[in-house]
Amino acid sequence: MQKDKIQKWEVLNSHYLFREPWFTARKDTVKLPNGHQIPSYYVLEYPDWVNIIAITKENKFIFVRQYRHGLGEINFELCAGICEPEDSSPLQSAQRELLEETGYGNGIWQSYMILSPNPSTNTNLTYCFLVHDVELISSQHLEDTEDLSVHLLSIEEVKELLQNNQIKQALMAAPLWKFIAENKLL
Amino acid sequence: MQKDKIQKWEVLNSHYLFREPWFTARKDTVKLPNGHQIPSYYVLEYPDWVNIIAITKENKFIFVRQYRHGLGEINFELCAGICEPEDSSPLQSAQRELLEETGYGNGIWQSYMILSPNPSTNTNLTYCFLVHDVELISSQHLEDTEDLSVHLLSIEEVKELLQNNQIKQALMAAPLWKFIAENKLL
Repeated sequence: MQKDKIQKWEVLNSHYLFREPWFTARKDTVKLPNGHQIPSYYVLEYPDWVNIIAITKENKFIFVRQYRHGLGEINFELCAGICEPEDSSPLQSAQRELLEETGYGNGIWQSYMILSPNPSTNTNLTYCFLVHDVELISSQHLEDTEDLSVHLLSIEEVKELLQNNQIKQALMAAPLWKFIAENKLL
Repeated sequence: MQKDKIQKWEVLNSHYLFREPWFTARKDTVKLPNGHQIPSYYVLEYPDWVNIIAITKENKFIFVRQYRHGLGEINFELCAGICEPEDSSPLQSAQRELLEETGYGNGIWQSYMILSPNPSTNTNLTYCFLVHDVELISSQHLEDTEDLSVHLLSIEEVKELLQNNQIKQALMAAPLWKFIAENKLL
């Protein structure tokens, strides 16, 4: 495929505006290859994230519903979470999140996609996993700040959610549509 | 589909940390339905965004490449941009962005998906469009802060990018995989 001469920017100055546990924001002064400078370019630093298309032995897809305060809506979502420092890998983060949020575990896991939530602003990646044959092996273990319900959906229900634009979160719509495409489910 | 009793949070207090053109951040103190309070919940306010799957009369897909400073990478992307206050609709924003960034216009437009970049943190939506039969009607009109190249790809090249995980931006991977699924291109 044809390439080009697009180049990276040079960082002339950088300092942190905030370094809170859930909000780390940086202001960079950058110089473009054309010589133009941007005095204030804002970058958001986050840990990497994970999400999971989890399918039970009975061929049901595990979804959760929870309130999301940025958008102000409650929608169907994949199980998702962040890579904690003590996790040894994104896979372990995904297995931990699935167990904590839904009580499901075991199964046959595969790495499915790696996405950027937003390459303009965000430093982090999201690791999407696909797992078949999970089983209910525990109860939910939610944190005080988590209030979510678990739903087992058929593939027809998943397709209905996608086709009605009810999977709003782009990081979840992408692997789900990939799954529909690869398995020729339309 | 089964619903539940998940409820919205109550906002006890809210103030702005930053109100810059490209960075508006708010800190809310919220109360969950279970009574638990989160003293500092950070919300990022952005205008809505648009992106476009644009296909020429010759059946080529219009992609751009540019450096993205958050992730620090140069990748293939769909043409994309923001809804400016003077745009009358997301469709007009998308048509303006496609013309400015690539010089392509006309064509048969349809709304294709509406996604949330991140419902936890972001207030905004991304409107994804699909347009067939665009034509080169102008030259690029880039801003000083834009440095991007235009690439016309075949459907085989688009599939190769998707299957090799080279479309990193989730807001673009989602409509592209939907396009592959709906047109049974795998």
